[in-house]
Amino acid sequence: MTHEEAVVLLDSLISPFGQRVRIALAEKGVDYEYKVQDLKNKSELLLKSNPVYKQIPVLMHNGNTICQSLIIVQYIDEVWPDKAPLLPTEPYARANARFWADFVDKKVYECGSKLWKRKGEHHETAKEWVEIFKLLECELGDKKYFGDEAFGYIDIALVPFIVLFYAFEQCAKLSMDEECPKIVAWAKRCMEREGVSNALTDPKKIYEMILSQ
Amino acid sequence: MTHEEAVVLLDSLISPFGQRVRIALAEKGVDYEYKVQDLKNKSELLLKSNPVYKQIPVLMHNGNTICQSLIIVQYIDEVWPDKAPLLPTEPYARANARFWADFVDKKVYECGSKLWKRKGEHHETAKEWVEIFKLLECELGDKKYFGDEAFGYIDIALVPFIVLFYAFEQCAKLSMDEECPKIVAWAKRCMEREGVSNALTDPKKIYEMILSQ
Repeated sequence: MTHEEAVVLLDSLISPFGQRVRIALAEKGVDYEYKVQDLKNKSELLLKSNPVYKQIPVLMHNGNTICQSLIIVQYIDEVWPDKAPLLPTEPYARANARFWADFVDKKVYECGSKLWKRKGEHHETAKEWVEIFKLLECELGDKKYFGDEAFGYIDIALVPFIVLFYAFEQCAKLSMDEECPKIVAWAKRCMEREGVSNALTDPKKIYEMILSQ
Repeated sequence: MTHEEAVVLLDSLISPFGQRVRIALAEKGVDYEYKVQDLKNKSELLLKSNPVYKQIPVLMHNGNTICQSLIIVQYIDEVWPDKAPLLPTEPYARANARFWADFVDKKVYECGSKLWKRKGEHHETAKEWVEIFKLLECELGDKKYFGDEAFGYIDIALVPFIVLFYAFEQCAKLSMDEECPKIVAWAKRCMEREGVSNALTDPKKIYEMILSQ
């Protein structure tokens, strides 16, 4: 790999968005330099690389910078198409994958953020969380992964948020396994993948961080 | 075209998101059945076609329903790839197109909505609007369209919002032509395209609707 082709990821360890990118790179077997960013004191490199949002993750490759996690994951899939294709090839299946990944950004992230910010009553947030995951469970059905047999784009978009299951269970005395057994079984299957288990944060640590907010 | 291949669009005339889809279909030369939806009394068809968001636009094609305007535009580009390609082929150029289209959804739409809802002071909203368009002007540069010589994905994402220029100018006594001359020239070029001018609403009508909110 020449210097020109070097892959660099600006990231923060517990970011679900950064985790998506790390999982995608692991699935593709792409080596990269990992540069942890201090989000309270943003580096010149980060500010220059993502001047619009000034946020991680940022992927640097071939002298270009790519921002926004789902856009980065699609980029990775297009640059390294041969190993572990993430998006399907058929247009409707691709549109469906994009729809549910976008749903994760709009609904799962937003609802999870409420728990972090401890906004409102936890049981209200937990009710919303369960409703969101029931829709996802309906989409998953009896498939192994969202895209069927192969781990792919929707899985990558959603899997970083499974570490919040424990916090929701503790805060709102619910059982994700009772509410969404297929999703919990899917989460376990995902965690058997080295790229996923390496990227995600310990759910108990996340819960402690939420409590200490 | 067989019945199976028929294209149906559930839409509302003044929706910028629906306009994106109509422009994309016009660029591709795809015939379709247009079904205007009453958004105050949503049809069974709309509720069944988009159960998650219950919103237009919805594209129906080959027995499938596709929701969310930018996802629909990508679907259209993938199903009818030969005429008027909308997304570029090179991965970084594709990522860049997706980044700016997403920026339009996050920033332009949000800021435009404030004017519609008459939230806050108009001159504050107008200041934000100009800042957003200055970033877009910087991305456009001296190119004919955002993707260079060919009208494409970013243009389609952004062009429905140019009808708000007049309302911003009236409400906040600004001149878009003075603030962002390249964007205004780009908007005029876009309006010379039949698919665009047919889809967009008269800016004066939009301004009257905002006033009557």
